[in-house]
Amino acid sequence: MANHAKAIVLLSGGLDSATTLAIAQQQGFDCYTLSFDYGQRHRSELEAARCYAAYAGSIEHRVMRLDLDATGGSALTDTAIPVPESAGDGIPVTYVPARNTVFLALALGWAEVLGSTDLFIGVNAVDYSGYPDCRPEFINKFQELANLATKAGVEGIKFHIHTPLIDLSKADIVRTGTRLGVDYSQTVSCYQADEQGRACGVCDSCRLRRAGFEQAGVPDPTRYR
Amino acid sequence: MANHAKAIVLLSGGLDSATTLAIAQQQGFDCYTLSFDYGQRHRSELEAARCYAAYAGSIEHRVMRLDLDATGGSALTDTAIPVPESAGDGIPVTYVPARNTVFLALALGWAEVLGSTDLFIGVNAVDYSGYPDCRPEFINKFQELANLATKAGVEGIKFHIHTPLIDLSKADIVRTGTRLGVDYSQTVSCYQADEQGRACGVCDSCRLRRAGFEQAGVPDPTRYR
Repeated sequence: MANHAKAIVLLSGGLDSATTLAIAQQQGFDCYTLSFDYGQRHRSELEAARCYAAYAGSIEHRVMRLDLDATGGSALTDTAIPVPESAGDGIPVTYVPARNTVFLALALGWAEVLGSTDLFIGVNAVDYSGYPDCRPEFINKFQELANLATKAGVEGIKFHIHTPLIDLSKADIVRTGTRLGVDYSQTVSCYQADEQGRACGVCDSCRLRRAGFEQAGVPDPTRYR
Repeated sequence: MANHAKAIVLLSGGLDSATTLAIAQQQGFDCYTLSFDYGQRHRSELEAARCYAAYAGSIEHRVMRLDLDATGGSALTDTAIPVPESAGDGIPVTYVPARNTVFLALALGWAEVLGSTDLFIGVNAVDYSGYPDCRPEFINKFQELANLATKAGVEGIKFHIHTPLIDLSKADIVRTGTRLGVDYSQTVSCYQADEQGRACGVCDSCRLRRAGFEQAGVPDPTRYR
C-alpha cells in the first residue's frame, strides 16, 4: 500500500519512536528518519536510532547536532541534575525546555526541502500528563504554525503532524509495534543507559517501558545491566 | 529605565538585529544575545554579531551551531544555488526552510532556562513581503505556541515575541538605530560578505540596506569591498 509520499519520522532510538516508524511505513510512507544529538546523557539511544533506522529500512537517517547541553535546565542534559527514580508531581526534571518545538522545527525544514508534508512524532498519553510539548493542543498549534512558517505553506500546501501514539497506553504501543514486527530488543528507552545500550531499570522511562510490556503480556526483550 | 527583566535578542550581526538590540536595551531589558552558525555563506556576520554583542553590552552572547547546511534548499546555505543580484517575484531563493521557527524555538528554550519571557526578533516589513516566517501572523502563532510548548507556559507565564521593526521601513530602522547610537559600521548585512566583513554592494540585502541609508538621509558607514 505504498503511497509514494515521503514522511519525516523523529527517531530517538526508543520504544515509542520505533513503533511510530513502523506505523508510518505501514501507512505506505517512504520514511526519512531524524535524530538529535543534543548532549543527552543517554548517548546510546543515538546509536540505537542509527542501527534501528538501517534495520527498519529508513531511506535516509540524519543525526543533527544541537547545543541544548549548553543551555541546560534539564536532568537529561545537565549532569548536575540527577535523573529521578520515582514519579513526582508536576512536570518532571527530565523536561528539556522547548525540545519538541526545536525538533519539529528542524524536521519541518528538512520536510520542506524534501517536498514532504508529513511529519511523524511518537508523543503519547503517558508522556503528555507531564511534558507540555507532548499534548495534543501543542501538536495542533505546531501544525498551524507550520502552514504559516513555510514557503510550501504559503503556496497552499498543508503540513500534517502525525501522532499515531497520542491516545495509546504504553501497553497498546507495545502490542501495536509487536504486531507490526518492531524488534524492541534493538531500542533503548533508558535515560541513563550504559555504552552498550543496557538499561538501568529504575528511571522513569525504564519503569514505564517495563510496565508496558507487562500489561501487554509481551515478553520484555530489554537488555538490563 | 531598567526593568531588570531578561530578554533574549536574536542577533545576526546585521543592521536590523543590531537595531532590535538597541530598542530592547532602551526598553530597559537585560539583554542576552543569540546567534546561529547554520552554515550560512556570510560567515563574517557571525563575527560581527560577536563583536557587536560585546560592544553593545550583551550580558551573554551565545552562538549555537545548527546543521542547516546539511539540509540545503537555500542560496544562503547551498553553494550550488547562486545569491540573486536583483529582486524577483515570490519568495526569494535566499529563504531558508523553517529558519525563524528553528531560531525562535531555540531562543525559547534558552529563555525558559533563564527565566525570561521576552524574545526579540528583528523581522520587518521589507522582508515579510518575501519570507513567510517574517509575517506578523507567523509571529503571533509562534507566541501562542510558546505558551503551550513550555513548562513556564503551563504554569501560566506568558511569553512575548517582540518585533519592534515589523512595521518600519529600512529608512525608519536606520533613523531609529542612529538615534539610539547604533554603530552600523560594525554590522554586516551582505549575503556574501568577505572575511573582513566587507559587503558586495549588489545582493538583495546590500541593495535594501544601501537604499535605507539613502532614504533616511544618514551617511552609509558600510564597508564595501
